[in-house]
Amino acid sequence: MAEIRTDIVTGYEVIIATERKKRPSDFSYNEDKKSNADCPFCSGREHNTPPEVAAVRKNDSSPDKPGWEIRVVPNKFAAVNPGDRLYEKKEGIYTWLNAKGNAEVVIESPEHYTSTGRYSTDHFTNLINIIQQRFIELSQLEDNKFVQVFKNSGAAAGASLQHPHWQIISVPFIPPVNRLEFNGAKDYYEKNNSCIYCDIVNEEKQPKIRLIEENDKFIAFTPFASRYPFETWIIPKTHTSNFASEKKDSIKDLSKILQSIIKKYENGLNNPPYNLVIHTSPASDNNEFYHWHIEMMPKLTITAGFELGTGCFINIIAPEDAAEFLRGV
Amino acid sequence: MAEIRTDIVTGYEVIIATERKKRPSDFSYNEDKKSNADCPFCSGREHNTPPEVAAVRKNDSSPDKPGWEIRVVPNKFAAVNPGDRLYEKKEGIYTWLNAKGNAEVVIESPEHYTSTGRYSTDHFTNLINIIQQRFIELSQLEDNKFVQVFKNSGAAAGASLQHPHWQIISVPFIPPVNRLEFNGAKDYYEKNNSCIYCDIVNEEKQPKIRLIEENDKFIAFTPFASRYPFETWIIPKTHTSNFASEKKDSIKDLSKILQSIIKKYENGLNNPPYNLVIHTSPASDNNEFYHWHIEMMPKLTITAGFELGTGCFINIIAPEDAAEFLRGV
Repeated sequence: MAEIRTDIVTGYEVIIATERKKRPSDFSYNEDKKSNADCPFCSGREHNTPPEVAAVRKNDSSPDKPGWEIRVVPNKFAAVNPGDRLYEKKEGIYTWLNAKGNAEVVIESPEHYTSTGRYSTDHFTNLINIIQQRFIELSQLEDNKFVQVFKNSGAAAGASLQHPHWQIISVPFIPPVNRLEFNGAKDYYEKNNSCIYCDIVNEEKQPKIRLIEENDKFIAFTPFASRYPFETWIIPKTHTSNFASEKKDSIKDLSKILQSIIKKYENGLNNPPYNLVIHTSPASDNNEFYHWHIEMMPKLTITAGFELGTGCFINIIAPEDAAEFLRGV
Repeated sequence: MAEIRTDIVTGYEVIIATERKKRPSDFSYNEDKKSNADCPFCSGREHNTPPEVAAVRKNDSSPDKPGWEIRVVPNKFAAVNPGDRLYEKKEGIYTWLNAKGNAEVVIESPEHYTSTGRYSTDHFTNLINIIQQRFIELSQLEDNKFVQVFKNSGAAAGASLQHPHWQIISVPFIPPVNRLEFNGAKDYYEKNNSCIYCDIVNEEKQPKIRLIEENDKFIAFTPFASRYPFETWIIPKTHTSNFASEKKDSIKDLSKILQSIIKKYENGLNNPPYNLVIHTSPASDNNEFYHWHIEMMPKLTITAGFELGTGCFINIIAPEDAAEFLRGV
């Protein structure tokens, strides 16, 4: 039984996922499983994953058989479990919740040796559409207070399988970073009567500073207080609190700019490991003061003692220099 | 000029240290500089570091010459700079401070190919004493609002040089994690009229749960909401807000328990990369409600998209199992 434990000093939650328990000798840092030899995400190995919950398939292909273009399956090694009733338990001065939630994997394509930047625009747009659809469905389930959509690319960024994929994990609480952002945006809204992210969009539209590119509905830029070299944010230009609210034509614009940044990473930064995270209002909540966006973080440096101790990052590339470089790729 | 920029949504500071600027092609993830060939921390290469600010030396040896046992020098590649007057600047909707502060390196021993667990008890106690002395001196300098003491061990934990060392970095603000802990401890104190860490010590003294070991003045345990496998905290049993306040006999007990845990990591976990961070009240502040301690984090797993997005960690070893294993090493 996985537990959601709360640190009583910081209030931050931690998921203790003992189902995935290893012995100390099982740990190997930064193992790179590049081969497709036993890859459960490859076409023809559909029986090695739990049954699919959604897919983009060619006309007459059957579920859990080859013929798919994008496939969504429950995570076989999930840190959360959808089955149980949610309950709280006390243990001395501490409390924990059972880790109720859903964990899904979105397999980007049947191909193992490919990269996300190489898909056709249509394929990439289908991918973002199916991710949004799963986000909406999971957000509507009871007890799913927050649904986190993210992509780990490369072993050094935490992808345990090389076959390109995204992950979706839902949890029965609003997580620490999201609480922090919701509170920051709410305070700003109450003080300034405007959305903080709309004001950021307005600031970052200036050419040749931190702007990387823009289209009708989105802009991509390196944030003023970038924590990581080449960190990039993609924000809708029109105030939108929730990723779930984006319509088909916006998803098209989103897909274009997102794939363009991924291509810039792949080509300009030599295909680096990276993490990509969707920050959004929970579907169940209006959070009018919040503004959903994507944060992308190449993993080119190591988060070490100073950052872990203080929460203050040291970034050795100014975002203005990073933007100039990425504009040129 | 390095800048301390504040993320306007979260309020979290980031140091943009452009002095250490690299070109994109200069990044290489997880490079392991194991050789002593050009190591500036080795005995005989004292001229490759800035002049020492403190040292433990044999009777008649001169500063910046061989004959030292422990040596403290300013960091040649510092993210902060002690020289300037502190000032704030506005840039559009954002603000930044110049990164005024001190950065020092504590070289643990003249030997390159050694490990921290192997020193004599006396040598290790001298090391902790000189670290405390530098912490106190830097804490007293103008504008040093917080002094972070930490150790990165191993390339994967961010140590750019293998020669064993600690680092001390001071900054002109109270960093995000420390603000969070101070606020958490203060709230708890106001509500319960007791120190939250004293209550944790009391809870964790129970044998065979999360306790690893204890001596007269300190206990070592795996915290209830451990974020990392084998994460270990060392806390003084008597309420003490500030690392600076520990007297010589406490430093002796601290050295014993800290070196014992380091030995357990080295021997039980196959010499893993790890980070070690001192959490303390700032010297300039009384913070009676706070209780200083050490947090140790082996780097056996990768912090990935879910953690970066939510701030909620997934830990695949229960702290109770980690403690049982470490007790047995």
